[in-house]
Amino acid sequence: MSRMEVAQVLHMNGGVGDASYANNSLVQQKVIYLTKPIREEAITSLYCSMLPKSLAIADLGCSSGPNTLSVVSEFIKMVEKLCRELKHKSPEYKVYLNDLPGNDFNNIFKSLDTFKEKLCDEIGSAIGPSYFSGVPGSFYSRLFPNRSLDFVHSSYSLQWLSKVPEGVENNRSNIYIGSTSPTNVVRAYYQQFQRDFSVFLKCRAEELVEGGRMVLTILGRKSDDPSSKEGCYIWELMATALNDMVLQGTIKKEQLDTFNIPQYTPSPSEVKLEVLKEGSFFINRLEVSEVHWNAFDEWNALEFEYERSESLSDGGYNVAQCMRAVAEPMLVSHFGEDIIEEVFSRYQQILADRMSKEKTKFFNVTILLTRKA
Amino acid sequence: MSRMEVAQVLHMNGGVGDASYANNSLVQQKVIYLTKPIREEAITSLYCSMLPKSLAIADLGCSSGPNTLSVVSEFIKMVEKLCRELKHKSPEYKVYLNDLPGNDFNNIFKSLDTFKEKLCDEIGSAIGPSYFSGVPGSFYSRLFPNRSLDFVHSSYSLQWLSKVPEGVENNRSNIYIGSTSPTNVVRAYYQQFQRDFSVFLKCRAEELVEGGRMVLTILGRKSDDPSSKEGCYIWELMATALNDMVLQGTIKKEQLDTFNIPQYTPSPSEVKLEVLKEGSFFINRLEVSEVHWNAFDEWNALEFEYERSESLSDGGYNVAQCMRAVAEPMLVSHFGEDIIEEVFSRYQQILADRMSKEKTKFFNVTILLTRKA
Repeated sequence: MSRMEVAQVLHMNGGVGDASYANNSLVQQKVIYLTKPIREEAITSLYCSMLPKSLAIADLGCSSGPNTLSVVSEFIKMVEKLCRELKHKSPEYKVYLNDLPGNDFNNIFKSLDTFKEKLCDEIGSAIGPSYFSGVPGSFYSRLFPNRSLDFVHSSYSLQWLSKVPEGVENNRSNIYIGSTSPTNVVRAYYQQFQRDFSVFLKCRAEELVEGGRMVLTILGRKSDDPSSKEGCYIWELMATALNDMVLQGTIKKEQLDTFNIPQYTPSPSEVKLEVLKEGSFFINRLEVSEVHWNAFDEWNALEFEYERSESLSDGGYNVAQCMRAVAEPMLVSHFGEDIIEEVFSRYQQILADRMSKEKTKFFNVTILLTRKA
Repeated sequence: MSRMEVAQVLHMNGGVGDASYANNSLVQQKVIYLTKPIREEAITSLYCSMLPKSLAIADLGCSSGPNTLSVVSEFIKMVEKLCRELKHKSPEYKVYLNDLPGNDFNNIFKSLDTFKEKLCDEIGSAIGPSYFSGVPGSFYSRLFPNRSLDFVHSSYSLQWLSKVPEGVENNRSNIYIGSTSPTNVVRAYYQQFQRDFSVFLKCRAEELVEGGRMVLTILGRKSDDPSSKEGCYIWELMATALNDMVLQGTIKKEQLDTFNIPQYTPSPSEVKLEVLKEGSFFINRLEVSEVHWNAFDEWNALEFEYERSESLSDGGYNVAQCMRAVAEPMLVSHFGEDIIEEVFSRYQQILADRMSKEKTKFFNVTILLTRKA
């Protein structure tokens, strides 16, 4: 997949149906919950060091669903709380929601009025004037004017590469780095990540003000080995479903051989290395968190608003739907629509089987950065 | 219709189908063409008085179709031309596209990459860095931070009121000001226009920088009489179609009696009066232009890229489709979907008949304003 193609087909499922991202983004929600303390630290130190009259915040890869505005809501609440404690006037908020042009922005925009009303209700008073806008485009390019942002957030987006790396033609029956992937494939994926992430850092360094903060959470791994199961297993099981369909004759072998996911799940040290090489940011924190593939699994232990229902406890279904919301547009673009139902029904069974036998987790690398002066 | 309801149902038909605004916005395109000299004057004087490094431009009521980016394209071309003549470096462009949240922003966002490529091709060199964003919300409220805009443009949007005026219950078989409307109805519509337009001016006065320019084109009238045919006839003929359907029993009389269009077609002096009352702007120009209901009519006389084809010369059809693209969401929301086809087929016949017997025109009031220091 070229850069242009990725920009067109890499988007979460739109709308609000059964397979929509809006209804299948619990993992992402939980990750946002887990990383809240880091944002709290970032926002408090940002506010207290600058005492700004105006705050510009960008969420990069905002998607379209219940998570889209949750970080914005949290951000404004934290700032308003600080203002009250310090007896300051509320600042004005400029909120930029970014994603690729295929994202369902209409859905976000229609929810904004209700969002603002609810936010004022929850805070119990009027907030500072707030201006929302949607900014379509790849975050692997400039999106904002020089020094125009105070805070950048991105969660579960930077594992997506700008394109499938070149030179992975021999990654035949795999669709990402897999246990049988040749070493050149692993290297090509890593190099693409390095190129993309360094471009990302360079662009944001130009867009952030001095002292501006950035909190990035990337679907990654703990291990130093890029082909460890931690980052790859979820796609390897989807590859199993696709390979079964090749054997059955529903998918052509050649089609599968030429399909690769534009993703890389980096380790903390790989993330750190690029930040140090780029040189514009201090690293304030670098952490790894974990979340079960089936986010409902340990749900009750957390103070969440979701209701756990019978239908939701079917792990295979949940995880398959979650992956479907993320991967369907890409699969449809390569294989056509006809195979989709079967792929995900097979995938669901494979997932259910594996999850009953092993502990399956996503690993999240979170980094807090401050723009140097 | 309340303010909330108008914000939800007042949007052009989305998508790219037969009844879409995207395919039925030739009148609006022609009006943009006719008013180009005024924008040229505005942009030249803006650029030459400020020599800006960065230019923030907002199109309010941008809709979603071929016209959406045409003014932006023209703006950037004019500025780039001035830069070359004056041997200046290109400025950076911040482009804000605004419309109500029901507008099809997804469609605009997907076209942006192609738009930028085409623009660079046409200019024949790279343009200054340009940052596009979508800003959903009513322009009868604040949309942008203080003093953040250099140029505001709005075409064929400000005739839409924030809501149907109160106190028009006795406007029974009319759907807008009509020849049989009681005087209290005419007054209520005018007062709503005054309230809305003064709020609009106050908000923009806060958002524009000193010396910032604003070019507004409003579907209006030449005559001083608000119930003159100039502004009202097109809706009166739609009311005829609806009244026929009441007689036939397809629409309930009560339904028609409670339907009114949230629009006002002001005269130049009504526009001028509000600007003078608000007080923040100099009036540089105030003009009226005319365009045939069927914009294809006088098409060949102008240098346009459209091809005139047989099917497009059916005036009744063209005008009905144009009005459908604009009014369908409102009609559906009040009367339901079932009546739509018949309304517009009747409307088409009525329009064709009238257009064969009289000269039918839209009148456009265009005003160029400069923000006072």
